[in-house]
Amino acid sequence: MAAWSERLAGVRGVLLDISGVLYDGGEGGGAAIAGSVEAVARLKRSRLKVRFCTNESQKSRVDLVGLLRRLGFDVSEGEVTAPAPAACLILKQRGLRPHLLVHDDAGEGFSYRNMNKAFQVLMELENPVLFSLGKGRYYKETSGLMLDVGPYMKALEYACGIKAEVVGKPSPEFFKSALQEMGVEAHEAVMIGDDIVGDVGGAQRYGMRALQVRTGKFSPQRRASRRAQMSQQTKIDPLQGGLCGAADILMLSAKPRAPLPSALWEDVWKKMSRRSFFSRPFRLKLRGLNTGSKRSYK
Amino acid sequence: MAAWSERLAGVRGVLLDISGVLYDGGEGGGAAIAGSVEAVARLKRSRLKVRFCTNESQKSRVDLVGLLRRLGFDVSEGEVTAPAPAACLILKQRGLRPHLLVHDDAGEGFSYRNMNKAFQVLMELENPVLFSLGKGRYYKETSGLMLDVGPYMKALEYACGIKAEVVGKPSPEFFKSALQEMGVEAHEAVMIGDDIVGDVGGAQRYGMRALQVRTGKFSPQRRASRRAQMSQQTKIDPLQGGLCGAADILMLSAKPRAPLPSALWEDVWKKMSRRSFFSRPFRLKLRGLNTGSKRSYK
Repeated sequence: MAAWSERLAGVRGVLLDISGVLYDGGEGGGAAIAGSVEAVARLKRSRLKVRFCTNESQKSRVDLVGLLRRLGFDVSEGEVTAPAPAACLILKQRGLRPHLLVHDDAGEGFSYRNMNKAFQVLMELENPVLFSLGKGRYYKETSGLMLDVGPYMKALEYACGIKAEVVGKPSPEFFKSALQEMGVEAHEAVMIGDDIVGDVGGAQRYGMRALQVRTGKFSPQRRASRRAQMSQQTKIDPLQGGLCGAADILMLSAKPRAPLPSALWEDVWKKMSRRSFFSRPFRLKLRGLNTGSKRSYK
Repeated sequence: MAAWSERLAGVRGVLLDISGVLYDGGEGGGAAIAGSVEAVARLKRSRLKVRFCTNESQKSRVDLVGLLRRLGFDVSEGEVTAPAPAACLILKQRGLRPHLLVHDDAGEGFSYRNMNKAFQVLMELENPVLFSLGKGRYYKETSGLMLDVGPYMKALEYACGIKAEVVGKPSPEFFKSALQEMGVEAHEAVMIGDDIVGDVGGAQRYGMRALQVRTGKFSPQRRASRRAQMSQQTKIDPLQGGLCGAADILMLSAKPRAPLPSALWEDVWKKMSRRSFFSRPFRLKLRGLNTGSKRSYK
């Protein structure tokens, strides 16, 4: 398999999934995943552009960003691409009157009564339209795996004999809007997530690169069984850790236009244990190594 | 299209769906569908064998039969094939320990909490097994259409990446057991139901004939759109009414081994408006018409 530096060559922007990558939800809001607060900070200090790309539909962007900031993350509302604002835009553009099913108290809101109401509304329409904010199968909270919105989308699709329009990952439109907001082309971007379908598969189909972290809902067994059901086109990189490790690899690999000499890689790994790679003194030292183009290591 | 007498030639047994054919559920237990109490009585007085074949999983057979009897139907527990006893048998045969999801208080029991519990149990198993008692999309109560168990089966299938085993219509095993209990071969039986997939499609795939009544959840628009999604092998007979009309056609068409002469048909239709076709005096009169074999019109 090609080296990281080759596989991530030319990457200028990083899209970060939130749940399962930055934090696991749960009681009291949840908990940051080890190393992820520092990894976000390091990525943002680097020359890579960073944006957050989430399918979160239980919290508004304001509430989500508030929670993340309380957990220690450096993130602002303007840096988050989420499906609810995207869905609002579509509703306005098409002049649709929404019957909202997903709101603040989902999942408990996914009661039989509410699902049946949504079903009855759809069945009464001549041309029923169902939007689903993402189609994730499940996500991880600190207490365990939790059903995501995807199974409920499938339930309504089956009951009504219709196909939902997905707003959120892995919809190409959603990745497009996140990339536009970041000002980066698909081939220059990498998606980091814990979902093999929504994050990795979706991003790759849109022409981006993707890394699956081994945090959140990741499990090697589930990935293997899921992999067997998926398109053979989805490529899986053998990332070993969480966002912390992904950030290391990205900052080492993404910026250079030419691969780093292997001697330099060793030097870099040693130094990484002592200080932040792209802090100023270290960057200056790298420049002094005369590895080709100054610009490559800025 | 061939005449009813040809299409139903050789039929010796009738499987009757219950919900949407005999009655519509709802407040206070629901209401019998117009003409269905009398139609069941007439079918049972005929020489046709009659059995009830339901996917009901919210009531035990005792409760279901109790309700039907209160609504005026002549039915006993031993005449009902239902998925819960069939599922019990499978669980015993395979030595499985069930985690029941469907019980007395479903649908409200289909809460997010219960669905998530079922999902978590399945995800923890190395070889998860999910049984679904039927896979109906929806059924009709007096108050309107209601989500059936099928959408929830699809939700768990999608969430866990598994395929449920359906106990109930349209499973071939289920039709087989109903027919065995009735002592009739598939090619000698007709299924009467309101569900184009579970009743009509399932029965036809098992080699039976099938009639879709225009009661319960039937709707011409929905049938047309559903038909377009279905296998082209599912044949739809142009039945106009409910069980009442189906019983008339069956008793006229099913028993004779040779088609009735058209003059006799006209006579029969006239008499049907005045009295029950297979009542004794009328049967005696038919015998006197010398239409070939006495046995044909018994």
